[in-house]
Amino acid sequence: MHARQSHIFQVIPRIEKRFVETSFLAYVRGRCRRLPQVELGIGDDAAVYEPRGRQVVCTDQIIDRVDFELDQHCPADIGFKSVAINLSDIAAMGARPRSMLVTLAVPRRPDNSELAAAVYEGIIEAAAEYHVAIIGGDLSVHDGPLMVSVTMIGELDATWTPWKRSGGKVGDAVYLSGPVGGSLLGRHLRPKPRLDLVDTLRDDFNVTAAIDVSDSLSIDLDRLCAASGIGVRLDVDAIPIHRDAEKRSEETGRSPFRHAWSDGEDFELLLCVAPEDASRIESARTEASSPLGDLQRIGELTSRRGLWKLEAGKLLRLPPQGFIHGGE
Amino acid sequence: MHARQSHIFQVIPRIEKRFVETSFLAYVRGRCRRLPQVELGIGDDAAVYEPRGRQVVCTDQIIDRVDFELDQHCPADIGFKSVAINLSDIAAMGARPRSMLVTLAVPRRPDNSELAAAVYEGIIEAAAEYHVAIIGGDLSVHDGPLMVSVTMIGELDATWTPWKRSGGKVGDAVYLSGPVGGSLLGRHLRPKPRLDLVDTLRDDFNVTAAIDVSDSLSIDLDRLCAASGIGVRLDVDAIPIHRDAEKRSEETGRSPFRHAWSDGEDFELLLCVAPEDASRIESARTEASSPLGDLQRIGELTSRRGLWKLEAGKLLRLPPQGFIHGGE
Repeated sequence: MHARQSHIFQVIPRIEKRFVETSFLAYVRGRCRRLPQVELGIGDDAAVYEPRGRQVVCTDQIIDRVDFELDQHCPADIGFKSVAINLSDIAAMGARPRSMLVTLAVPRRPDNSELAAAVYEGIIEAAAEYHVAIIGGDLSVHDGPLMVSVTMIGELDATWTPWKRSGGKVGDAVYLSGPVGGSLLGRHLRPKPRLDLVDTLRDDFNVTAAIDVSDSLSIDLDRLCAASGIGVRLDVDAIPIHRDAEKRSEETGRSPFRHAWSDGEDFELLLCVAPEDASRIESARTEASSPLGDLQRIGELTSRRGLWKLEAGKLLRLPPQGFIHGGE
Repeated sequence: MHARQSHIFQVIPRIEKRFVETSFLAYVRGRCRRLPQVELGIGDDAAVYEPRGRQVVCTDQIIDRVDFELDQHCPADIGFKSVAINLSDIAAMGARPRSMLVTLAVPRRPDNSELAAAVYEGIIEAAAEYHVAIIGGDLSVHDGPLMVSVTMIGELDATWTPWKRSGGKVGDAVYLSGPVGGSLLGRHLRPKPRLDLVDTLRDDFNVTAAIDVSDSLSIDLDRLCAASGIGVRLDVDAIPIHRDAEKRSEETGRSPFRHAWSDGEDFELLLCVAPEDASRIESARTEASSPLGDLQRIGELTSRRGLWKLEAGKLLRLPPQGFIHGGE
């Protein structure tokens, strides 16, 4: 198969795509789990499945030298990341992921089949770990960078409402699902989408608003507040700082907090709940082995728009920052 | 906005993506039609909608210098094509398109915002023409070719079965929905997905198998036969040849039939129906203004695998050909 493909690769780009696709899809099909509601998976003009609730759909692509470095990162990690960032978006909606479509554009080089397969190993690993069926995709070889694009389809049970960014209410407690900062040291390639929190919170707590931390804690918190038309008063000392933020701090000279505040790609969740649910979370979070133990209450939604902290009795505005902004 | 983006483009690729995305999604959102069942469209971590039947999903990407030539083709045509080829896949399943997600990777150059917007004009035009809601997407600027990837979501009413490739039965009549060949002269950029035939056939005829002609009449017919585990006896003289195939013939010296047989990107449908339905199509197709008038009966499914024609009383095997294969 590889020899034949390599030969075809040198002939005509348009047809090569189909040949790669045919053999590749056969390989993927063989490696994929099936879901009972998938009536027709890879191999026809489209996949067909029976939905089991409202559909929740997102798509995110990652590209060499924009979102990862192919010459530094393991192809399977790149594949895993492409799936995990989309799973994180599904988690941020409070939904369950069900199926996905994967599109690869692979640079033209002698080992492009091997590269595609190595990327796919990480994709299949993530699909297996999070019980998602791969129901379709596309594959091209081109004169350009490696690119992986995933469309993820999740579902909401009939009684579930989506966790929108816009549902936050004044007085809601704001939780962060884990320590942030310094993910570029490696965590960003193997993010853990917090679907465990969806499972735990979904039936017993009313999450009013949610977003995942992809660009930075402050940028995504700012987005949630803007969508909800309100602001947040932060308990800055309660923000959990990852030890990677401390390591990065030693390299950059910026404070660990600054890294927690402005680094991206943590893929933790920001969750808002009404005060009565917050009390119940405080009780439940002490139970051993509950993922609620990861939740840190970092502030409260307020009517004044923007990000604020209380310092010496005064409200101080905190500017949202991504890593485009330097220093302290 | 453009000046600011151009400035950011030169700083950090990761953040630029988000800035482009934010302003661009606002633009797209403003240009898109809404569907009543879309509960949440562009702007949150994922879109949410209420399905109205089984879901039919496909994805196809097109890339500069593989599927089109940016320096020759109009950006709006490229955008239109990216949508139309996916609509054609939905039509080939006998489904109705409902919503889609669009992912763009735009080459880094001074006018990348304008390029993205120009491509999007064609995307929005196709979405409007075929009543599809744009519910999500992604946008990156990168050091590579223009790439447009679309995930299309269609639906099947409760009583509808999908038109699989694999449902063909011995004795079924095989129809082609229109003349083929020579699409590279320009038609390939503005294909007309045959959703009109889905609407006309869906309720009154039992289509046993279908596929759209994307790679070539012979390759896709061969795929349908292979999936159904049977073959086809063709009435070669009945195959409708597009006048573009004749024009191409004058350029290439190959016969018009050869172009009809082996050129790709026609996006007509191959449809199989049982003999009794074929008789009813023959009656109905004479009615003025019915799209059934486009249907040409080109052969019959047979138990002997492969593509065949009857010549001087003998069955002659016809090899499937795409445009990788040269001459007559």
